[in-house]
Amino acid sequence: MSTASDAFVEINRERFLEELKTFLRIPSISTLPENRADIEHAAQFVSDGLREAGLENIEVIATEKHPLVYADWLNAPGKPTVLFYGHYDVQPADPLDLWKTPPFEPTVRDGSIYARGSADDKGQMYMHLKAVEALRAVNGTLPVNVKFLIEGEEEVGGASIAKFVAANPQKLKADVALVSDTALYAPGVPTLCIGLRGLVYLEVEASGPARDLHSGLYGGAAPNPVFGLIELLARVKNPRGEIKIPGIYDDVDPPAPAEKESWERLPFKERDFLKKEVGSTKLSGESKYSVLERLWARPTFEVHGIAGGFTGAGSKTVIPSRATAKVSFRLVPHQDPDKLIESFRQFVKKYAPRGIQIEERVLSSSPGLVVSPNHPAIEVAARAMSEMFQQPTVFVRNGASIPIVGDFATHLKIPTILMGFGLPDDGLHSPNEKYSLENYYKGILTISHFLEQYGAQGQ
Amino acid sequence: MSTASDAFVEINRERFLEELKTFLRIPSISTLPENRADIEHAAQFVSDGLREAGLENIEVIATEKHPLVYADWLNAPGKPTVLFYGHYDVQPADPLDLWKTPPFEPTVRDGSIYARGSADDKGQMYMHLKAVEALRAVNGTLPVNVKFLIEGEEEVGGASIAKFVAANPQKLKADVALVSDTALYAPGVPTLCIGLRGLVYLEVEASGPARDLHSGLYGGAAPNPVFGLIELLARVKNPRGEIKIPGIYDDVDPPAPAEKESWERLPFKERDFLKKEVGSTKLSGESKYSVLERLWARPTFEVHGIAGGFTGAGSKTVIPSRATAKVSFRLVPHQDPDKLIESFRQFVKKYAPRGIQIEERVLSSSPGLVVSPNHPAIEVAARAMSEMFQQPTVFVRNGASIPIVGDFATHLKIPTILMGFGLPDDGLHSPNEKYSLENYYKGILTISHFLEQYGAQGQ
Repeated sequence: MSTASDAFVEINRERFLEELKTFLRIPSISTLPENRADIEHAAQFVSDGLREAGLENIEVIATEKHPLVYADWLNAPGKPTVLFYGHYDVQPADPLDLWKTPPFEPTVRDGSIYARGSADDKGQMYMHLKAVEALRAVNGTLPVNVKFLIEGEEEVGGASIAKFVAANPQKLKADVALVSDTALYAPGVPTLCIGLRGLVYLEVEASGPARDLHSGLYGGAAPNPVFGLIELLARVKNPRGEIKIPGIYDDVDPPAPAEKESWERLPFKERDFLKKEVGSTKLSGESKYSVLERLWARPTFEVHGIAGGFTGAGSKTVIPSRATAKVSFRLVPHQDPDKLIESFRQFVKKYAPRGIQIEERVLSSSPGLVVSPNHPAIEVAARAMSEMFQQPTVFVRNGASIPIVGDFATHLKIPTILMGFGLPDDGLHSPNEKYSLENYYKGILTISHFLEQYGAQGQ
Repeated sequence: MSTASDAFVEINRERFLEELKTFLRIPSISTLPENRADIEHAAQFVSDGLREAGLENIEVIATEKHPLVYADWLNAPGKPTVLFYGHYDVQPADPLDLWKTPPFEPTVRDGSIYARGSADDKGQMYMHLKAVEALRAVNGTLPVNVKFLIEGEEEVGGASIAKFVAANPQKLKADVALVSDTALYAPGVPTLCIGLRGLVYLEVEASGPARDLHSGLYGGAAPNPVFGLIELLARVKNPRGEIKIPGIYDDVDPPAPAEKESWERLPFKERDFLKKEVGSTKLSGESKYSVLERLWARPTFEVHGIAGGFTGAGSKTVIPSRATAKVSFRLVPHQDPDKLIESFRQFVKKYAPRGIQIEERVLSSSPGLVVSPNHPAIEVAARAMSEMFQQPTVFVRNGASIPIVGDFATHLKIPTILMGFGLPDDGLHSPNEKYSLENYYKGILTISHFLEQYGAQGQ
């Protein structure tokens, strides 16, 4: 099975690596306005790659923010259609001084390629192109119909693709979507992710006095927006890790007993997670739930950043006039992001400290999601992975958010296969992000096998 | 009385202003290493000015940080000695974009001179030099002995002068110290400050995970140092403005009934304070105490700045590895700074959130202070002020800290006259700091009258 395309991948190993390096050199940071040209460059790189892979009807679609890249190949009548999704944008690379090699100069060390975006998501989405290229190169055709929709705003909320999907259900019609933006549970363990948390990301700004004040002259009577913001945010979660926004736990479904049991069989070692992954002295959060349940099936509240007042070297006795924080809630399946946002607004209104004005701005919002492991496409995907890794595929959830999966469910009525080949220590969003080259090649092979088997099985 | 020296001041008005402008152009920001040369420049300017005023034994004294400037004139045997203190360093000028005219290009508008340091303290300390210069120019002598000790670290804790005073009580021996670094209670109201709050300034750093983490993958189990710092700092003060550090109120003496009554007679309007000075919707703090009592006679806790995680434009779903805050406690007379620091350390130890390491660093520490209004030098000073402003001098406290006043009390056993000519809306430590020119000249005259009357009265 698949020997011809497997051989093609084997022969082209070096080229596939060099192409990925070229892709990773583009600093396509979607959140920074100064990287706008890099975003355009990355979109063009993807569109060129799709052309070389043999795709047709290639479009770089302008949006209100960053372009979408679309392509298809629909010459397998009677066969199912797979919609490939990925993103060419990346997170900012700061703090830069913690990178061992520069974030946008991809470097291979110990079998992994180090660069911002190597695992999240350039290295993974590029596997899709190479799998299709390999099949088409050796067979002159593809075993299924395929569509590609690649975005450049995944790290900043994905507003444009969400609109596009909602507006173009016919153009995007497919039987299943395939996304590689997750990780193996552990090295060598074939893994399909069947649950994702949603995300509501907000900016919260506190303002107090009309100007910066001397704390000696005004301290004790003038409202301090830094402390006001601290007071407010501290109320959102208690020391036991429980979120105090009214109603937040109302719609939280506990995982099914079978799913919970399967998690207990995973090779999860809390001590290793604490020491090797988190690198801290103790874990936090709701201790009455297991760590995996806290990560996969419980909502969370985090403060991602806070800034206000004097933070230079030395001391300045100022009561500043404003302060800002970036915060988010992770949501589990069945929680309604809009309902949460409304509850948070009420909470802010109720608890805004005396003399402090609070303004909250929603930067993005997406619901959580679960997919059934019994769906035919998921079953084929699980089999392709099991064969590649020579052991049974495990079904897990992921605490992160891939908002597009919800959009595919809502507007296209299709499930999404989350077949990721990252590893837990890849350092997504951190310095020294990496992606295993073994998994890069295995991913290309697994995806090509999946397409063959899914095509052979029929719709 | 004083007609000759008053006339000298009148004749030299323009020159006194131009000299002050030259002084204000030096950006002698003591907290920023890049302004080191400006600090040296300012110290030299002061030493030159003292020479021109007729002082003797002028020294620019190197310290571990910024130089002290010393000078004296001790040719009035049998007369008392006045120790003049001031500081030539200033606060940082940020946020720069809020200044109407540049902070280091002094500009006269509506009878005030606008520049960083105009009121705090260059404009005020320069009055001392000009008062001495005027008396000496017209009389060829001075009515009292004088010593000057001017520092360049007042805005960063004043460690060097504290050591110097402790080590040189004989050199600095005097009957009273005179400091102009405070304000009139209101325009035209002669004011002597007889109480100051102390200050304990700390930097608090929280660290958690060994590296920045993706909040989707780790949120719910990994400790977040930004939230940890928020949790800890929020515990320090409750929503009623009460500080929760054990024992902090044990040694707080309420103001004497007579002092409290005199405060109630001051032309203080809470609404004006709220709207015109603070510029907020509501005041904060312990509402069971009057605003003046909260500002002058109650300890406070403030967060001056906080920084951690992602604070750029857009969103980044990171759990950062560390976060830092600048905080301070203001102390009232009789509170022991060391005792408070120890209580705070215990508090931090007890309440450091799970998985978060907290490190606190003391940046400066000084006690609060009260002086009796019945001291002879204070009485003379009050009379000189009353005559200048044609109404009775009021006795107030000040919520800010002038640590040197405590050092003079401890090591030289002398009281300090806090005879400031600033105004409440001068914008100390804020953009558009200003100093009234009318008060600049009245200050020079008042100080020269005080010296004459104090010398005439004898020791």
